Amino acid sequence: MADLSQKIAQGRGDMPADFVLRGGRIFDVITGDFLNGDVAICGDTIVGTCAGYDGTQIVDITGLTLVPGFIDTHLHIESSLVTPFEFDRLVTPLGVTTAICDPHEIANVLGVPGIQYFLDAAMETVLDIRVNLSSCVPSSHMETTGAVIEADDLLPLRHHPAVIGLAEVMNYPGVIHQDPGIMAKLRAYEGGHIDGHAPMLSGRDLNAYIAAGIRTEHEATTEDEAREKLQKGLRVLIREGSVSKDLDALLPLLNDRTSAYMCFCTDDRNPLDIGEHGHLDYLIRTAIARGTSPVAAYRAASLSAAEAFGLKDRGLIAPGQRADIACLGTLEDCDAQITLCGGVQAAEQAFAARKITPPIGRASVKAPVVTPDDFRTASNRTETDVIGVIPGKIITDHLHENITPTDGDKRPDSTRDLVKIAVVERHGINGNIATGFVKGFGLTRGAIASTVCHDHHNIACVGADYDDMALAVNRMADIEGGFVVAQGGKITAELALPVAGLMSLQPFEDVRTRLEALRDAAKALGVTLEEPFLQLAFLALPVIPMLKITDRGMVDVTKFEIISS
Amino acid sequence: MADLSQKIAQGRGDMPADFVLRGGRIFDVITGDFLNGDVAICGDTIVGTCAGYDGTQIVDITGLTLVPGFIDTHLHIESSLVTPFEFDRLVTPLGVTTAICDPHEIANVLGVPGIQYFLDAAMETVLDIRVNLSSCVPSSHMETTGAVIEADDLLPLRHHPAVIGLAEVMNYPGVIHQDPGIMAKLRAYEGGHIDGHAPMLSGRDLNAYIAAGIRTEHEATTEDEAREKLQKGLRVLIREGSVSKDLDALLPLLNDRTSAYMCFCTDDRNPLDIGEHGHLDYLIRTAIARGTSPVAAYRAASLSAAEAFGLKDRGLIAPGQRADIACLGTLEDCDAQITLCGGVQAAEQAFAARKITPPIGRASVKAPVVTPDDFRTASNRTETDVIGVIPGKIITDHLHENITPTDGDKRPDSTRDLVKIAVVERHGINGNIATGFVKGFGLTRGAIASTVCHDHHNIACVGADYDDMALAVNRMADIEGGFVVAQGGKITAELALPVAGLMSLQPFEDVRTRLEALRDAAKALGVTLEEPFLQLAFLALPVIPMLKITDRGMVDVTKFEIISS
Repeated sequence: MADLSQKIAQGRGDMPADFVLRGGRIFDVITGDFLNGDVAICGDTIVGTCAGYDGTQIVDITGLTLVPGFIDTHLHIESSLVTPFEFDRLVTPLGVTTAICDPHEIANVLGVPGIQYFLDAAMETVLDIRVNLSSCVPSSHMETTGAVIEADDLLPLRHHPAVIGLAEVMNYPGVIHQDPGIMAKLRAYEGGHIDGHAPMLSGRDLNAYIAAGIRTEHEATTEDEAREKLQKGLRVLIREGSVSKDLDALLPLLNDRTSAYMCFCTDDRNPLDIGEHGHLDYLIRTAIARGTSPVAAYRAASLSAAEAFGLKDRGLIAPGQRADIACLGTLEDCDAQITLCGGVQAAEQAFAARKITPPIGRASVKAPVVTPDDFRTASNRTETDVIGVIPGKIITDHLHENITPTDGDKRPDSTRDLVKIAVVERHGINGNIATGFVKGFGLTRGAIASTVCHDHHNIACVGADYDDMALAVNRMADIEGGFVVAQGGKITAELALPVAGLMSLQPFEDVRTRLEALRDAAKALGVTLEEPFLQLAFLALPVIPMLKITDRGMVDVTKFEIISS
Repeated sequence: MADLSQKIAQGRGDMPADFVLRGGRIFDVITGDFLNGDVAICGDTIVGTCAGYDGTQIVDITGLTLVPGFIDTHLHIESSLVTPFEFDRLVTPLGVTTAICDPHEIANVLGVPGIQYFLDAAMETVLDIRVNLSSCVPSSHMETTGAVIEADDLLPLRHHPAVIGLAEVMNYPGVIHQDPGIMAKLRAYEGGHIDGHAPMLSGRDLNAYIAAGIRTEHEATTEDEAREKLQKGLRVLIREGSVSKDLDALLPLLNDRTSAYMCFCTDDRNPLDIGEHGHLDYLIRTAIARGTSPVAAYRAASLSAAEAFGLKDRGLIAPGQRADIACLGTLEDCDAQITLCGGVQAAEQAFAARKITPPIGRASVKAPVVTPDDFRTASNRTETDVIGVIPGKIITDHLHENITPTDGDKRPDSTRDLVKIAVVERHGINGNIATGFVKGFGLTRGAIASTVCHDHHNIACVGADYDDMALAVNRMADIEGGFVVAQGGKITAELALPVAGLMSLQPFEDVRTRLEALRDAAKALGVTLEEPFLQLAFLALPVIPMLKITDRGMVDVTKFEIISS
């Protein structure tokens, strides 16, 4: 932090400011006014606005409009498929200056050392990465993970400077039914920040969940759901991820009156999406295009987010605030030309100066070698529970289809878009393999597989062909996890994710290229979903309704039970 | 705090709630909607809304509208002239549930033990009293106080559960010019909450002041001043005290867009005013009558205040929030019928159950015995600096009048409304007596005197007659401080304030009766000001522009200098 004495002297103009932005105008997210004058910065802190300043370094930004840097209020950086350092390089040029992440993907694979990796990286990135400590590892008792994290494991981390509080408490049945492990975590963070995750919860169940101390939540998918949560005191984080897209549904609730209590988040967004559409800038741009006032949109992206998470040092372009600033061409385009993160310009020089935290979690895929027969489903009940994929949502339908066994096996039927889904335990714990059916991929041949498989990150595989399914799953150990497409006995595309089976060691540009190839290869299988790998990843998450699958079987989330299929 | 397990169980309706409000409707200060359903309370915490609940105790509030309890964001409880316990009994029935006080009046007389008295009382009152630690005792180097408080004196108090942060940093010249004592206090609270006080500061000086870490401020008296402060990141507290009345000037800035960042405060409000007009209820009622939307008004009085001061547990009627609730007849009337403070009904039973903290600061008036001649002003310059009182403001005009000495004394001239003002040191330190002139009281005979004399609380006296001035000043030791009116050689009205010369030991009802008599007695002197004692009290405060007087002489606040007169 800049020295107090320097801040006062530079703010008063008694000495030149370290850094001056000259010629732009501030868009004030409190009043909606445009403010002229220089912006004076001392170290990492803004010390002057609306006045003339001399500076040691002066940057001319004539014609640009300055808004507070954007705060992503809930995300899993792992979903960008790159390390925190590449994520940094990817999103800061788009105006993102703070990312409040929950490293629960890596925590499910590696435990506390996975969280520590993010805490270490957070101290080095240009972006200010803040960490909420993963509360639900595993997300429920119905899955096998590489690690289990209890309340006592999290306590030593709570005073780390990057830590805010407890991350999304996904096990909402565990809260309202007072599961002892969940209760221990809630008690440990009582009075502190506890982030929520309670899709479709309402009425007295929602009351009980919030009364447990939950403050923020990002799972509302309808306006009514969001309105109830807002009226019950939750700060509503509007999410627009690569799969879960809630922006259109929730924007009607975002206006000048409510915007102080609503925020934006991306949750899970892949680098292809970020490259094609953007990150928080996409949410802001879209909101304004849909009729949201610029004040409401930019406020939700900055000040409201800071307030919701108790970050009192940011969210405004004003004296005493962290110098987190996006310099835009226009408010409507949300096209950052320059981004400052704590007074540091997000550009190659700053990225090059970072001390890179060594990657961890290499060779983490310890799955059994599978054979095509492992994907047979030996049931003689024709009525079959089927996961119904909803494009752009991570909630699913719980369908019932009649599937007649052939040779003692319920086989995929692509004429009805019914294909096989399997989850293979890959942490070296028990070698579980579970199978089931899914509808909605459009896949008619081959298979796709992934070690990005929320949140346990076992291997998820969807296929119309058992041989290709086995090929794809068995390829994972070779590439240390990742995405694979197999067709006709061949691997047709793949992306290695050697950091815990979740993140690439390559620059984000290379990852994008690979993802494009994977998208094409998936299309060649007949896949109609825009993001088949991300959509697949969420079919294994048993804390999102309605029907899911883990390595232990099909899960009826409403009942919070593993069901026979 | 209520037990977590109980809160969840009662919120879910698995067991009866401790307390249920039934039949009312909530006015939601986020969306502006009215919400039907019971309000369930477990201990001190709301656990359920918008649903039906069973309760151990059920109170029927059919027809009433529920709003979050009001938060006074900045006040000196001493200005109510009663103890914190009587203040509690006075304002909670009006819907006030949290008072963020700065006990700097008593601290100027008694030092840290004065602050400790408020901290002790805060643990006992029905109202939640929160304390910002007095930052400027004395307010400047230009006055004599009963105690001096340095940064080190405050450190042991900072973790007391009632403490929020550092109270109004009034010595704004000391901030921007980096006075070592002020800098030590700012450094001690860096990153924490620091409350401000910077009347008429603007431009780069204001930038420097805010860059020092100031977050909240209540001294804006014009819309332009408030707008600049708001746009520079200060949370603006709209003040409506008994003397300083800024509501009308600042209301145009309070609307749905800005209300999340604006609050209400009373600063200094006497019990007569509270009895006749109300407390925060008066501000709310007036705001709505002037056209402010109910959402903006009630939000400023509750949620915005909680957010501004980091009180994450209150400000909304929602699960998990402190059960601070005002049940109103109508939003427009703001007429609380029932008030709950942390689930406790503010009524005689609760007041009777409090453990009363023993009063301190008895016999604190140690002034020299004065004679009429002490009020002579022996100057031979006819041009005279005169304090120009502005009714309803604590800022003053710096006037220049020609006053020709008679017998080596500049005498009062009631034909020009020029009367004598004197400040007599009363802490037993040096016996200083300073004299000067003031215009605007309308007083033509007699004298009024007071030991409520911001912030040093020496004896301030205004008079047209030196004999009556001496009589009034000398009466102070007998009554242990207070208010006195003298006329024609007699005391015509008085109020004893034996707690540090600031607070009565009587119930607020009796204090009101006495104040009415004082008001009448002052009018009999020709006084035209509505609140002569409060107005007098602020003429001695040298951190409010323009011209003031302390025991050391007339102070030009703009120059921050004692001037000869």
